[in-house]
Amino acid sequence: MKPNVLVIAGHDPSGGAGIHADIEAIHSLGGLASTLITGLTVQNSINVQGFALTDVDLLRRQARALLDDYQFSAVKIGMTGSPDIIRFIGEVLDELPGVPVVLDPVLAAEAGGSLGEASVPQALLNDIFPRSVLVTPNLPEARTLTGETDIDLCGEKLLASGCLSAVITGTHDDTDAVENHFFMRSGTRRWQWPRLPGSFHGSGCTLASACAAQLAQGRSLEGALDEAQHYVARCLQNAWQAGKGQLIPDRRG
Amino acid sequence: MKPNVLVIAGHDPSGGAGIHADIEAIHSLGGLASTLITGLTVQNSINVQGFALTDVDLLRRQARALLDDYQFSAVKIGMTGSPDIIRFIGEVLDELPGVPVVLDPVLAAEAGGSLGEASVPQALLNDIFPRSVLVTPNLPEARTLTGETDIDLCGEKLLASGCLSAVITGTHDDTDAVENHFFMRSGTRRWQWPRLPGSFHGSGCTLASACAAQLAQGRSLEGALDEAQHYVARCLQNAWQAGKGQLIPDRRG
Repeated sequence: MKPNVLVIAGHDPSGGAGIHADIEAIHSLGGLASTLITGLTVQNSINVQGFALTDVDLLRRQARALLDDYQFSAVKIGMTGSPDIIRFIGEVLDELPGVPVVLDPVLAAEAGGSLGEASVPQALLNDIFPRSVLVTPNLPEARTLTGETDIDLCGEKLLASGCLSAVITGTHDDTDAVENHFFMRSGTRRWQWPRLPGSFHGSGCTLASACAAQLAQGRSLEGALDEAQHYVARCLQNAWQAGKGQLIPDRRG
Repeated sequence: MKPNVLVIAGHDPSGGAGIHADIEAIHSLGGLASTLITGLTVQNSINVQGFALTDVDLLRRQARALLDDYQFSAVKIGMTGSPDIIRFIGEVLDELPGVPVVLDPVLAAEAGGSLGEASVPQALLNDIFPRSVLVTPNLPEARTLTGETDIDLCGEKLLASGCLSAVITGTHDDTDAVENHFFMRSGTRRWQWPRLPGSFHGSGCTLASACAAQLAQGRSLEGALDEAQHYVARCLQNAWQAGKGQLIPDRRG
């Protein structure tokens, strides 16, 4: 048996981010990813050119089929796109009490390009943060979500929104090393990683899915995040230039 | 560098078939899968309950973004869904002269449930077969496509439709072993595999994608098919019961 991870996220045709990243990471780490696609994007390794959100009634029928068949050990949420879809996700989570939820609050692509309506941040804070054991914003997302600039104040406000823990990733920071800041109710822990040359397509999706895959296998929050960061570091070290834009992580890890 | 494989196929939320199978197989075999999703299905490991085809204009924009960025080394086509989408696929192939095309002419899910309009078989025969180096129908699909019952007559008629080679898989046959029949212009070759207990979700998708991944790395047709069958055999041997229906292949191979 492998643990089933329910992924609710967007689709990136270029294979760098979205459910490609989720499927590859969860598969490599020994789980099975089931996916509900919130939206199809027009995207390559250079940028995001647009997106089309999925009809919520179709998502409801897909979720029903999955929930009638599979037991899930973790949930990973990525691009949500609209308050309507966020409400739908809340309904799904109502049917999965006790299952750990990892939320990557995707607001825009790393290479640029919006991935949702303007009201998405507030809807996420209201409906999904209080149900999440871990949220994984990058620094720009954390600042948008909290209205704060200082990383520690961002972390404090994220926890105040009801999530059990939050990691703010420092890839977008201007420090020499990439520092990831993990905020728990019991305290703070920081990891430092070498800042690799180039930029990477889907590193945030990969981290959140790797955390979900680890939690699905029964690890602690801190243990899952530690393992997941080591996995992502290996994926990025082996990333390669698939097209003209960002590097694609090798998620065989 | 890894070879890029362009996948044009459907999405199965349960993670057994469709682009999940394609992504996992191509990833495990050292390639990168880019995916254009022809349709979202309502599906679990038990059966297919419905599908919604993707807007062709959106597919055109997605294809444009990919073709402007990536060089492709192979194409894998799965669920197509409608003659309109098949025409779109023809346009994409026009932009990829010389790139090997593997067509898995998906007409229905293995566990039951239609995956396209009634006019799909004829449109595939007209527009996609003549552009394919390899087509991979199972026996029921080969019979529907050709109107013949006998496997050798099916193979003859498939070749007459213009594809360079065809493998008819024998999982749906009633023989003791699973026999796969490979028809080339130069002759016929057959492989026998142990018939494993149970039924498998996405074995056809996995075989076609594994062939595309091998062709993308420069193997011969016969060599690609041989390697791909060995890979699929390993995936099926390690398949597991993820839900209440068909077994899911372990595509780490």
